Amino acid sequence: MNDISPGQFNLVSNAFSFTIAAMGATTLFLWLNRSLVAPPYRMAVTISGLVTAIALYHYVRILQSWDAAFQVMGGQISVTGVAFNDAYRYVDWLLTVPLLLVELILVMRLSKAATVSKSVRLGLLAAAMVLLGYPGEISDQAGTRWLWWGLGMIPFLWIVYELFVGLRDSIEAQPLGARGLVNAARWLTVGAWSFYPLVFVLPMIGFTGGTAAAAVQVGYTVADIVAKAVFGVLIFAIALRKSEQEPVAQAT
Amino acid sequence: MNDISPGQFNLVSNAFSFTIAAMGATTLFLWLNRSLVAPPYRMAVTISGLVTAIALYHYVRILQSWDAAFQVMGGQISVTGVAFNDAYRYVDWLLTVPLLLVELILVMRLSKAATVSKSVRLGLLAAAMVLLGYPGEISDQAGTRWLWWGLGMIPFLWIVYELFVGLRDSIEAQPLGARGLVNAARWLTVGAWSFYPLVFVLPMIGFTGGTAAAAVQVGYTVADIVAKAVFGVLIFAIALRKSEQEPVAQAT
Repeated sequence: MNDISPGQFNLVSNAFSFTIAAMGATTLFLWLNRSLVAPPYRMAVTISGLVTAIALYHYVRILQSWDAAFQVMGGQISVTGVAFNDAYRYVDWLLTVPLLLVELILVMRLSKAATVSKSVRLGLLAAAMVLLGYPGEISDQAGTRWLWWGLGMIPFLWIVYELFVGLRDSIEAQPLGARGLVNAARWLTVGAWSFYPLVFVLPMIGFTGGTAAAAVQVGYTVADIVAKAVFGVLIFAIALRKSEQEPVAQAT
Repeated sequence: MNDISPGQFNLVSNAFSFTIAAMGATTLFLWLNRSLVAPPYRMAVTISGLVTAIALYHYVRILQSWDAAFQVMGGQISVTGVAFNDAYRYVDWLLTVPLLLVELILVMRLSKAATVSKSVRLGLLAAAMVLLGYPGEISDQAGTRWLWWGLGMIPFLWIVYELFVGLRDSIEAQPLGARGLVNAARWLTVGAWSFYPLVFVLPMIGFTGGTAAAAVQVGYTVADIVAKAVFGVLIFAIALRKSEQEPVAQAT
């Protein structure tokens, strides 16, 4: 990270600032439009906005930490000696990743018992996945990184299994007009989440130095925007579609 | 930009501060009055406020970056060596310019299929226009600037064509009392947006140094206020006019 160029520094700064704007706008969009969906779906929309609000907070911190780590003067960059704090991402994920799965479960409107049991199981798996990734993230030894990467992949694959096998019947029971969107939300989760272990691996397969550091930061940032903001708007679209198809619920 | 005068520095600072106030006030106006329009038009008003809120955020960043780039002491100005970050504008436009077209489409209340297809097409064209402008903006070579300017003009002219030909029938189908306002919104879009490529060209046709730098900043700022804040209030006026003429929608 010490041989980052001024251009790479700016690219990462601008990506962080873009994310702050995108997360803030998505939060406001979701909360302002919450009343447009029927009451049974409002909790899903509220939580979608909470996830982007938590991410907004952490990206403000991440940008501050990034700015504190480097100094750009007259086209030259130098490290200040203040370390960039990688932990903000993991703290963010520990809060938001379980909530993302809860959003999906809530908008499907399963039975109360199924909602609770699936939320607890998927939420704990998601938290375990994030916690197992962190010891690898802060290590610069490839062996240690691979070990924790492999351990983190166990709950990740379990979540994928739950989404595709455990939720299959529930997705087939969704109203016809919403089934395609719920399926898209499931695929977006698996697709966007797969991006994180790939970005994690970059430094272990030869990508080092400033280019790798910038690629890791921009990679996580893009994945966060898709997994949280785009996903949140998709959850809102599902809630809106289902509200339109359930006139009884709407009249509540 | 190095030979800017203290007066020019202050003019630009004050223009940025004015814009922060105008964008913030417009955001609050739109969201506070959102319930005055009928439910089918609330999404258009919500998004109009989101656009000015995103611009508010970026103008705070732009003003901070401007202040960090120069130091004024005892009537003398000097550059600090910290570069003014031009990218904030492009990051802002990447988010807001597609949303401005979505506002216009939403307030017209087309069929669902037409709303989605036109929003996606115009949104992608708008994003392409902004992305193609950026490599030219950061270059100080006239040839490179003209190349990307020309490439960016292709999606711009396509958008103009869509607004005047693609939306012609839809505008003629608007209720009589709102048709004039929708037409005005269309013209305001084309007029205000034409301002950006003109400002972009200033440094290529001989305007250089402090005067040109100040003119570019003030020019973009005025264009942003018209294209986002004035346009947002116009969208609200259309929504209000249409709500009055559609008692059925209002009763929902």
